[in-house]
Amino acid sequence: MNRSYRIDCLQYANWSEKIFHEMHEGGVDAVHVTIAYHENFRETVLNIEQWNRWFERFPALIFKGRTGDDVRLARNTNRTAIFFGFQNASPIEDDIGLVEIVHALGARFMQLSYNNQSLLATGCYEAEDPGITRMGRQVIKEMNRVGLVIDMSHSAERSTMEAIELSDRPIAITHANPASWHPALRNKPDDVLRALGQSGGMLGLSVYPHHLKDKSDCTLESFCEMAARTVDLMGPGCVGIGSDLCQDHPDSVVEWMRVGRWTKEIDYGEGSQSNAGFPNMPSWFNDSRDFGNIENGLRAAGLDDKEVSGIMGENWLNFYDRSFAPQGKEVECGRDTAAE
Amino acid sequence: MNRSYRIDCLQYANWSEKIFHEMHEGGVDAVHVTIAYHENFRETVLNIEQWNRWFERFPALIFKGRTGDDVRLARNTNRTAIFFGFQNASPIEDDIGLVEIVHALGARFMQLSYNNQSLLATGCYEAEDPGITRMGRQVIKEMNRVGLVIDMSHSAERSTMEAIELSDRPIAITHANPASWHPALRNKPDDVLRALGQSGGMLGLSVYPHHLKDKSDCTLESFCEMAARTVDLMGPGCVGIGSDLCQDHPDSVVEWMRVGRWTKEIDYGEGSQSNAGFPNMPSWFNDSRDFGNIENGLRAAGLDDKEVSGIMGENWLNFYDRSFAPQGKEVECGRDTAAE
Repeated sequence: MNRSYRIDCLQYANWSEKIFHEMHEGGVDAVHVTIAYHENFRETVLNIEQWNRWFERFPALIFKGRTGDDVRLARNTNRTAIFFGFQNASPIEDDIGLVEIVHALGARFMQLSYNNQSLLATGCYEAEDPGITRMGRQVIKEMNRVGLVIDMSHSAERSTMEAIELSDRPIAITHANPASWHPALRNKPDDVLRALGQSGGMLGLSVYPHHLKDKSDCTLESFCEMAARTVDLMGPGCVGIGSDLCQDHPDSVVEWMRVGRWTKEIDYGEGSQSNAGFPNMPSWFNDSRDFGNIENGLRAAGLDDKEVSGIMGENWLNFYDRSFAPQGKEVECGRDTAAE
Repeated sequence: MNRSYRIDCLQYANWSEKIFHEMHEGGVDAVHVTIAYHENFRETVLNIEQWNRWFERFPALIFKGRTGDDVRLARNTNRTAIFFGFQNASPIEDDIGLVEIVHALGARFMQLSYNNQSLLATGCYEAEDPGITRMGRQVIKEMNRVGLVIDMSHSAERSTMEAIELSDRPIAITHANPASWHPALRNKPDDVLRALGQSGGMLGLSVYPHHLKDKSDCTLESFCEMAARTVDLMGPGCVGIGSDLCQDHPDSVVEWMRVGRWTKEIDYGEGSQSNAGFPNMPSWFNDSRDFGNIENGLRAAGLDDKEVSGIMGENWLNFYDRSFAPQGKEVECGRDTAAE
């Protein structure tokens, strides 16, 4: 099998057999799926239960991923490994002991905050960012210890810089783009991305239209040129894809993503009153079958084979190998067979 | 009955029939009791269930207080009205809808943060305070609407000032002293207290040794002189008692109050490694039977009858009358009979 690994390090879909087939058709070996935006611990467990049912029903298409080796297993068996992650710290509530529990249940990424202030860090929509909190410093140590990756995609700048500094292990921004390409609260300044790359961290490039130059009209060329410049900025081993594909959801879901339970008023987040729903995806990326478009676009933008395969999946695979095992039991080349 | 009303606007005891008798002997008409430090909603409901059992077992001593009139009823029937409050926002978790629910269950005070950063505001032990969060602004409006009093006793300075400004209704600092008398992170700067008084808010003077000049050795004279100066600073209608009496607890409880579930390490809070437990109370205030000592001390410090009765309970009673009913249904003189 000659093709590159393909890893999408962020999707949040209205999951269905159809979508699992699309992952298969797109040759996607692994997907980091969001299983919590605002859910507390018990609600997150319910979402895991739902995934357990899908794993039980569709074993020829998907299985639960825990280690980098599960990505290799997925490729060797023509399936997709599903890695769990949280876009908020809500699943651990106010309880540091839940960090180890959610890792045991399969969680591999957790954002320290989602747009708003959390108990751990500041979100990108708060007016000010005082950095990582007292509890946040404790939780970062615990996430490092058990192998739960810190994700700062929706966090504010100072909190992100402090997370990079405080964390003993590389962190991730699973889905965002450089703000220098498209200014948006969710996109990241060059100095943050540079620090992320220097620390061995990863950026997943997002295809969500609010993160794209010209939004839904963004061209594949523009996206892939941005990818090439980001490789120059961060280093070739630090860039992957985190499409932020939000597929087949009604618009009520994006409203819930923005509002959760924290306000009785509408908050439009990245949208606006006149553009409140999910934005239209760009023509060249509608679902998991379109990864070939990105791969071709990266080649057309002048990236070499190694750079392209790095972005398409090898870089995330390398990061998974280094990140998901308990501290002190990291593996460098995918020999991680840590049982849970 | 000639004596002043006596209201203690903060206690957290290892409650027992003995303590309810002491409240009775001390002529205490109302106590604001803490029913949550770190408890989530369900755990807080368990604590309410426990109080329901005590109300059922000791109806001749205590009953659940909901309005200012319940303080009058307590005095007229020689009992103590028990008002519920939270020292943290943990009981509402991340859910603004729980504000109305906890008010319906009897909660009348809620701190926006307890020492650490919360989803709403910053605690006094964080390194920096960016003020009230996005969720905090929404929750303040909702607390105003339903009649749940904002308490900033354990919050940081900027968050406290912003809460005073953002809240449409007067707020409280139920248990703290002026930092100008005894510098401590938990005591409050004069400008905060002045703003609190100007907004119609209340300060409850604390007898907890870490908040006292000379700590456990603080004299009654020093405490009462401080009370007199605080009346000068804030105005005569803005000062009461919030003893912060933490009675009959083992030291494991103060450790839990400090550490909750947010860290695996010890945090000594106001204490220290060599003084980790509950501090000894000053000789003149050991339990609810000692309110007479404070009343006598205030007279000896030169306060007049009206000022003394204000501090001992009238000021809190006036505040209760104005604060516990839904917005738009406030009463000015205790005619509040709002049913729940």
